[in-house]
Amino acid sequence: MTELNYVGHEMPRTDARDKVTGRAVYINDQVRPGMLHGAILYAKHPHARIKNIDCSRAGKLPGVKAVITARDFPPINIGFLKDNSPLKKDKVRSLRDEVAAVAATDPETAARALELIEVEYEPLPGIFSPEDALAQNAPLLHETDAKGRPLESNKLRLKWRFESGDLEKAKSLSSHHASGEYNATWQSHCCLGLSGVIAEFDQQKNLTMHSITQIPYLAQADYANALKDLGLHNSRVRIKCQTIGGAFGSKLDTHCYEFIAILLAFSTGKPVKILFSREEEFQALAPRQPAIMKISQGCDENGRLTYREVKMLLDNGAYTSWGATTPSVMISPISSLYQVENISFTAECVYTNNIYCQAFRGYGNPQATFCVESNLDQLAHEIGMDPLEFRLLNANRPDTTTPAQYRITSCGLSECLKKVAQGLGWEEHQKQKASNPADSKKLKGMGLASMIHVGGGARVYRSDGHGMMMKLDDFGKLSVFTGAVEIGQGNETVLRQITAEALGVKMEDVVLVTHDTDLCPWDVGTHASRQAFISGNAAIKCASKLKRKILGLAADLIECRPEELRLQKSMIYHVSTGPLGQGAMPLAKILKKAHFKSQGQMLMAETFYDPPNEMLDREMKGNISCAWAFGAHGVLVEVDTETGQVEVLNYQAAHDVGRALNPLTLAGQVYGGSMQGLGYALSEELILKNGRVLNDRFSDYMLPTAKDLPPITPIIVETFDPQGPFGAKGVGEPGCVPSAPAIANAVFDAVGIRMSRLPMTPERVLKALRQKNKEDK
Amino acid sequence: MTELNYVGHEMPRTDARDKVTGRAVYINDQVRPGMLHGAILYAKHPHARIKNIDCSRAGKLPGVKAVITARDFPPINIGFLKDNSPLKKDKVRSLRDEVAAVAATDPETAARALELIEVEYEPLPGIFSPEDALAQNAPLLHETDAKGRPLESNKLRLKWRFESGDLEKAKSLSSHHASGEYNATWQSHCCLGLSGVIAEFDQQKNLTMHSITQIPYLAQADYANALKDLGLHNSRVRIKCQTIGGAFGSKLDTHCYEFIAILLAFSTGKPVKILFSREEEFQALAPRQPAIMKISQGCDENGRLTYREVKMLLDNGAYTSWGATTPSVMISPISSLYQVENISFTAECVYTNNIYCQAFRGYGNPQATFCVESNLDQLAHEIGMDPLEFRLLNANRPDTTTPAQYRITSCGLSECLKKVAQGLGWEEHQKQKASNPADSKKLKGMGLASMIHVGGGARVYRSDGHGMMMKLDDFGKLSVFTGAVEIGQGNETVLRQITAEALGVKMEDVVLVTHDTDLCPWDVGTHASRQAFISGNAAIKCASKLKRKILGLAADLIECRPEELRLQKSMIYHVSTGPLGQGAMPLAKILKKAHFKSQGQMLMAETFYDPPNEMLDREMKGNISCAWAFGAHGVLVEVDTETGQVEVLNYQAAHDVGRALNPLTLAGQVYGGSMQGLGYALSEELILKNGRVLNDRFSDYMLPTAKDLPPITPIIVETFDPQGPFGAKGVGEPGCVPSAPAIANAVFDAVGIRMSRLPMTPERVLKALRQKNKEDK
Repeated sequence: MTELNYVGHEMPRTDARDKVTGRAVYINDQVRPGMLHGAILYAKHPHARIKNIDCSRAGKLPGVKAVITARDFPPINIGFLKDNSPLKKDKVRSLRDEVAAVAATDPETAARALELIEVEYEPLPGIFSPEDALAQNAPLLHETDAKGRPLESNKLRLKWRFESGDLEKAKSLSSHHASGEYNATWQSHCCLGLSGVIAEFDQQKNLTMHSITQIPYLAQADYANALKDLGLHNSRVRIKCQTIGGAFGSKLDTHCYEFIAILLAFSTGKPVKILFSREEEFQALAPRQPAIMKISQGCDENGRLTYREVKMLLDNGAYTSWGATTPSVMISPISSLYQVENISFTAECVYTNNIYCQAFRGYGNPQATFCVESNLDQLAHEIGMDPLEFRLLNANRPDTTTPAQYRITSCGLSECLKKVAQGLGWEEHQKQKASNPADSKKLKGMGLASMIHVGGGARVYRSDGHGMMMKLDDFGKLSVFTGAVEIGQGNETVLRQITAEALGVKMEDVVLVTHDTDLCPWDVGTHASRQAFISGNAAIKCASKLKRKILGLAADLIECRPEELRLQKSMIYHVSTGPLGQGAMPLAKILKKAHFKSQGQMLMAETFYDPPNEMLDREMKGNISCAWAFGAHGVLVEVDTETGQVEVLNYQAAHDVGRALNPLTLAGQVYGGSMQGLGYALSEELILKNGRVLNDRFSDYMLPTAKDLPPITPIIVETFDPQGPFGAKGVGEPGCVPSAPAIANAVFDAVGIRMSRLPMTPERVLKALRQKNKEDK
Repeated sequence: MTELNYVGHEMPRTDARDKVTGRAVYINDQVRPGMLHGAILYAKHPHARIKNIDCSRAGKLPGVKAVITARDFPPINIGFLKDNSPLKKDKVRSLRDEVAAVAATDPETAARALELIEVEYEPLPGIFSPEDALAQNAPLLHETDAKGRPLESNKLRLKWRFESGDLEKAKSLSSHHASGEYNATWQSHCCLGLSGVIAEFDQQKNLTMHSITQIPYLAQADYANALKDLGLHNSRVRIKCQTIGGAFGSKLDTHCYEFIAILLAFSTGKPVKILFSREEEFQALAPRQPAIMKISQGCDENGRLTYREVKMLLDNGAYTSWGATTPSVMISPISSLYQVENISFTAECVYTNNIYCQAFRGYGNPQATFCVESNLDQLAHEIGMDPLEFRLLNANRPDTTTPAQYRITSCGLSECLKKVAQGLGWEEHQKQKASNPADSKKLKGMGLASMIHVGGGARVYRSDGHGMMMKLDDFGKLSVFTGAVEIGQGNETVLRQITAEALGVKMEDVVLVTHDTDLCPWDVGTHASRQAFISGNAAIKCASKLKRKILGLAADLIECRPEELRLQKSMIYHVSTGPLGQGAMPLAKILKKAHFKSQGQMLMAETFYDPPNEMLDREMKGNISCAWAFGAHGVLVEVDTETGQVEVLNYQAAHDVGRALNPLTLAGQVYGGSMQGLGYALSEELILKNGRVLNDRFSDYMLPTAKDLPPITPIIVETFDPQGPFGAKGVGEPGCVPSAPAIANAVFDAVGIRMSRLPMTPERVLKALRQKNKEDK
């Protein structure tokens, strides 16, 4: 391959300057002419009938322009199973339920108006655990489904069941077994940018949503459906996003507050802004899906994995968002991490009166990997193998097919494991372990965990595609119209690198046009670690179309064949003379010559790239991604046996990324992911009591801060994926996937306790230590 | 042709609602974060050396962020001959010359700072008429040209000379002759929207101009050149326009104030807004080019025109903008209005210390047509022919070539003349004229004038092209990316009609993306009446590309040949069953089917349309437009012989527009044009004394108001031009072209005086009447 000018180089993020200097415009900063401010009244009970809502006093408050309830509009059903609605009419099912909303001239008036709304409830018994939800005679949260068909239990009508091989036979033939139950709880996304939206109708009743969504085009469809419910059948819905202050999956669904903004704008004829408080972020946004996971795994006498059986119970909360579909990704590590033939997996989602759940970086994978990798470690212990060797023995290999029918092409898992072990001083540690001073209060331990995740997009929607348009001006400046949403992951930078490289122009000459559904062709959204892969491939495809035109024009002018010409860093030159040779000329010169003549032309191109990904079939099988990302994390921890505090002393994070498009931003993804994984492992948890979030602020929700940062070493493994743009695979999510089991395994290594519940807070570690001591005695 | 759904229908303007309800955002309304306000100090003398500028006091005023003069920057040369600069360094040459500028936190502070700037001048003798400028020993305004070559006179180095046939021979063979001198003066554009700009650099020194230009892409090049002078060689220049409050040619050039805003933004690192006052609009913007025109024409004994000779002297003012190039359009009526073989035309532009001149609707054509048509009327009188018959005899015919090598294809001039005559009751009037009561104080008269103008674009720049991109979403909503600028003429409406018609979608599903050079492909600008023709043809070309793709997809689905399918109003149907027949399906359905599958696609298209127009050669010959617009205006006036007041009682305005794309907006163009022509004829004039504009406000500058509106009847003549979009030709400028001569000819008809100077104010009419009475006696 010829030398690359941008791809593979460390490039600072192109959006960084505006962000650090305060020039970036967030939803907080946005103001529209005549804009009103909306506010939402939430439920007072986790489960209750709404007897009456009296808005009369609120409506009379000066400055209040609208007070609305569900009774003011036709029914609007939203969410994955359409079991939710922007405002709740007859019943509330959780404390985050929206019962009324206000639009006023300023946020303070809106807040005061909320206090004047009187709601009369008839409280109902609540269900706050999935086990209780399944109990006989448990009260029904939803009496019917969206189509009015009666429901007989709190189970969701979603079938998550996967089988491959012969589980029972494998069990009987296995020499070693390990089983356990693992528990993961709610984790909040904690985006530093608050949630908000401005809904605005024009005079033709077309809707513009000034939004922060990760999925502009799916959101467009959701809003368009809601408008139909309002009788607006042909309104254009335009989504415009400005700078998004973090997403991590929290903006992968459309939210009640957004539809409420639409209803308020529709009612008042004015743009209406709703901006969340930090408390609302914790209380009313949907966090990571909790899971109760039962697992058993076995291996033969040589340590080869023989089977894996996983049963999950998921607390869906009161309504169904993407959280309920996380089993579709949990299946990845369960079916396909390490080589194991005989698999059984079932997952059951049940309604409770808790907060409902959403997508969160990894989309179920951190939960499942915690379960699989903790238990695998236990199995290695059972057979008495070194956990590293055990993993290397069973590691995925290139050019294999997994039980879920994933076709593994590039795979650097073994290399990741080896490099992590090397970075930790694994061998040394194993030798020294015996010499651990038994009477020390602080004990060191080392742990490993691997991961697999989609790395080439994921066909979770009927299209996994990405449209792109490019337009060159007379100065050689390129506009790239892309539906890709930058949520802080650095896609803007990498996409500019890929485009500049693929077309052969200077990176500073590439501008992205983004975040506007009127301007940018369709994209399924920023999720599933797909943007670098998908938009990158779209850029290569579109650029090559454009380049062909350019070289054709240049060849006509220079009188040679296009194949003899090269375009690099905005210079066109003959292959025989090179970029500095005679006859080399700036791209702009060719463009002007092509343009400034009778019947001239200007250079544009458009393309749509949809990867060869398959949808999961009914048996949860199918190659949903044409490339697979692997990685391994390893940690050295020190456990304080007096306080239960787990300190990470060394954190090695190796990822098979196919190709490092930008080692600098890639490292950023790994740092960020590891930190999020670390928080998930050790401190982050939304604490609910009777459906109420108790820790709804940063002083109570223990997000790791900069001072908690352990020494993280990102290790980049390049395997040059055949389908990836310049060989790259997705890496957006992987960073947070294997952290928790790696740490849990290190804790085991240090003090011999297997932490089965996340987060591993000092209290829980201490309790487990005491339990162990009691048992040991 | 099949029935059309949108083209040819009366459609209200799609931008009207926002404009009348105050939702439209003008430059006045625009605010950028951290924005400063700029203000300009103009010269105190029409011609003087700048000895010294002391900015120290101004700079100390709290709130002032920058005070700049030409001495703070490298030289920046701007304008058509590069004889102008944003700030003047050594010399001022007119009272509108910019000598210093200020940026401050608010406009009031900026204005106060201007008062604190002390400029020391050495006054020089001024030249205030073109004749004086040509006098021997006249002081030189410019000692050198832009390249530093010495200039020896005040004549511009621009050659305007046209010859065809044998003038002298034709003169000698002619039986009748008429000659005269005509005088047209400065007319101000009087846009209701004030001029303004916000210049803003990003942190990479890329420039965004929030602008009101008619020529975003030419302006982009101008600004980029200025940035190069500042040492910024690869900065991207982005032009973004919001609603433009009128243009009429005033925004066809880049202006000193815009470059000053750039310099202030460059100096302060902040966005800087400069917004003109109404006084600045009159004082510092460049008005219509005045002209002193000498003409003689002749005909044979049958009334057939034999020759036309025109000599012009143009007061260029102190610097050169587009005004100096108006002879390139004056040549149209001079060479090609009516059939006449032997032509001579010269025009000389000279520097004076007056205000410099710009493009204005018609671009020299109103001046030239006033001269040609007034004199032609005189010639008809000489030979004793009815002016209508004389014109009909000599009128242009389809499929002819004029001495300027214009290839006239469609031509409805005769029909226009006949319809105007009919609308006026011409024949009746001719009969009754004899019975005019001689002793009446108020005398009625009827006059006619014809016009020719480019109707299919005009290659005045090396490209007359227009790039376009289209993108369809899953809902069948279309985004059209167009460089066309809406300056109030209604292009947005017509372009949506054309697109909807050509593609076969509902008009409300078409949205235009406009006014942003980053988003919209290149267009040479909104001028030369070209947008409906050029962007319309681009839309047809682009839509047909898109339609081909759509019908191909639909044919695959329906299993038929694409030719058997039709797309109309967003429904696809088989030609055999019709739009309501079985199997007809909404476009959106096809689009979704094409998109939502593996390896799916979305529909986009791009195109560049450049008409087969030629550039004028050195002899001022060439078919600069592939279609030619014709028209004729006729008026009935009443002249009050006691006050000199001319009242228009009946105004018939017939235009050969090829095809009326939208009769409603077309009538708007004719009304507006006629009113502007009426003002030009009767009341509008910028009064200068020693270079100073004396009437710089609407109370003194006599713009006709709604109460001055005569009964104007637009008459649409359709000739279905072969090159035009759906047969249409340009009509943006024609409306104002023949007004003045039609009225002048009517005044002659009424009272026997030939008004040779515009405007025909009551004072001038009265003076001429008295002169005539004196001569008659």
